[in-house]
This record gives sequence, C-alpha cells and structure tokens, in this order.
Amino acid sequence: MELYEKQLEREEIYNGVVLHVVRDKVALPNGRVAYREMCLHKGAVAVVPLTADGNVIMERQFRYAHNRVFLEIPAGKLDRQDENPLDAAKRELKEETGAVAKKYTPLGALDTTPALVNEKIYMYLAEDIEIGERKLDPDEFIDVELIPLSELIDMVMKGEIQDAKTQIAILKVARLKKMI
Amino acid sequence: MELYEKQLEREEIYNGVVLHVVRDKVALPNGRVAYREMCLHKGAVAVVPLTADGNVIMERQFRYAHNRVFLEIPAGKLDRQDENPLDAAKRELKEETGAVAKKYTPLGALDTTPALVNEKIYMYLAEDIEIGERKLDPDEFIDVELIPLSELIDMVMKGEIQDAKTQIAILKVARLKKMI
Repeated sequence: MELYEKQLEREEIYNGVVLHVVRDKVALPNGRVAYREMCLHKGAVAVVPLTADGNVIMERQFRYAHNRVFLEIPAGKLDRQDENPLDAAKRELKEETGAVAKKYTPLGALDTTPALVNEKIYMYLAEDIEIGERKLDPDEFIDVELIPLSELIDMVMKGEIQDAKTQIAILKVARLKKMI
Repeated sequence: MELYEKQLEREEIYNGVVLHVVRDKVALPNGRVAYREMCLHKGAVAVVPLTADGNVIMERQFRYAHNRVFLEIPAGKLDRQDENPLDAAKRELKEETGAVAKKYTPLGALDTTPALVNEKIYMYLAEDIEIGERKLDPDEFIDVELIPLSELIDMVMKGEIQDAKTQIAILKVARLKKMI
C-alpha cells in the first residue's frame, strides 16, 4: 500500500520558547486533503553515565507538564538542528552533573511521539567518568543522585520510571552489559 | 532541594484537532516567574500482540512529522482522559489489526516527552490471539505485518526501530520472556 503523504501548504500557528507549532495541508495516499498539526523540534541527546562501580548518575527534575518530579538520565536539547549529537551529549552531561566521560558508546535514537512532534533523541552510554563541578543556569533546578544500574533496571521493569528516554537507554545498557 | 513549580495563570494558545497548546505563568522554586509552554494530551495505549508462534503483529504507518514510514506496535489515543486504558488497548488492537486477545499483561506506562507534552502511553502484552477483520477509518493507512519477536529485539538494539513506545514495549517483553 502507498503510505506517503505530500505537503501542500504550511501555516505557522505559534513560535514560542520551546514549542514551534505548524499546521500543514497535505495530500493523503487516496488523493484526499487533510491537515497535520505538529511541533517542530531541533532534536536532543540523553546519556547513561555509568561509573566504574556500577552506578548511574541520575537526575531528579520537576516536569511542569506532568506536575511531578521525574527521575531521568541527563539530557538536553541540541543547540542547533545540525549540531553533532555527541558534542551535545558531552556538554549536557558536564553542565547538569559535572561529569566528564572518556568513553562514549552510541545507544541509537528514539522518536518521542511521532504523531505530534518531530523530536529525535540520540542516546549514549558514557563510561570512564570523572566527576567535577557542574554549572546550571540560575533558573535550572536539578538534583543529582547515584543509583545502581541493577536497581534502575528493576524500577523500569516495575513501571516506577516512566520517562521514555530513560526506560529505553537503561534497558539497552542492561542488554549490552548482559544484566538479566 | 525544593523542585516544584506553581501555576499562576494559563493562556490558551491553540486548540486544534490533535494539538492543544497552552502557556502557563509559573512561580519557580526560587520565587522568580517563568513561562511554561506545553501540549495537553488525553493519553494513549500501545499493545505488543504476540502470537503463539512468537510473532508480533506490527504496523507500518506514515508519520508526517518525520516524513517517513514507521514500524510500530499497534497504538491509539484514549477516547477520553478517564477511559480505562485496557478497554482502549482492546479497541485499538481490533480496529487496526483485526486481532482479539484473551490474555493481557500490563507493561507499565511511558511519558513520551515530559518537557513538551503531558502524554502518557499505557503498554500491554497481548497473548492468546485470534485474528479477524480490521476496520480502519477511510483516511487511515496502515499496513499490518507479522515479525518474529527475536528479530524485533535485534532491530531495536541495532537502532533500526526508533519509535519510543515500540522500543520500550519490545525490550520489556524480551526481559519478561527471558530472551537474551
């Protein structure tokens, strides 16, 4: 079956600080016309910083859209759509946790919610870690905590960690490290 | 550290067919004022329909925001925010693939992209499956395909499947079924 849709027109809806919303007129595979609303996003990175003794440097951060504190791996947006994701991963890890890693292993990427947003998050495992000074923005509030990888795997499997990037990256590292 | 943010005011930005965008004025933990843009979402469900011979009923669907065809597990939005997610899972599986399952196992939930959208997706493993007639909307274009679970696990680990809900649900089923 032909599945592709073709852009006909774009309407700008809202261009804010984090959300850029557009509404496109498209031709469906059957020739009919439909409208597609979506948020445009530059892309992001997420890192599993794994210490030599098997702990992951995790973050607790309030997420306003869910009105609760999330337990997450360090992550952040690309500065520009064409920024090298590995450079962004190193920057975000250093800024948010103070950690610098000598070894990075790609964990693939994830598309967060493809019906609504074109956001893609590139994931990395970071090892050979030295912890230094972090430098948060004055309006950034993040608590940092070391949690054993084995405990995080259990939390994901019990449904206690719901953040998508954290679940995927932790389960991928579990498989790479053959932790059953 | 106190991490919570308090809503002060809400501005409606756009209320479309799939996107409902608001901009809230909030008080930060340090007392300063900031603005939070986000999309409001009713929630969704996703199902891993696993047949007796180890295949998963998968879907290929064009995702306009990414301009490409995605390989995904069956999924769909809740009809109402308070709809029972298991009822929605059964409905979406039947409508999109024609399958009916006798056994459902919860796989937890995922928050797709907590900085932008309050969307939560409830995941299930569906077993004891009978395949019948599906009933797509006239403007819905979805190809259905059986793929071995073992092959899907490899595809997730190689980065060939990027959809977040599909990666999480497949990796969770892999652990539940002890597939190494």
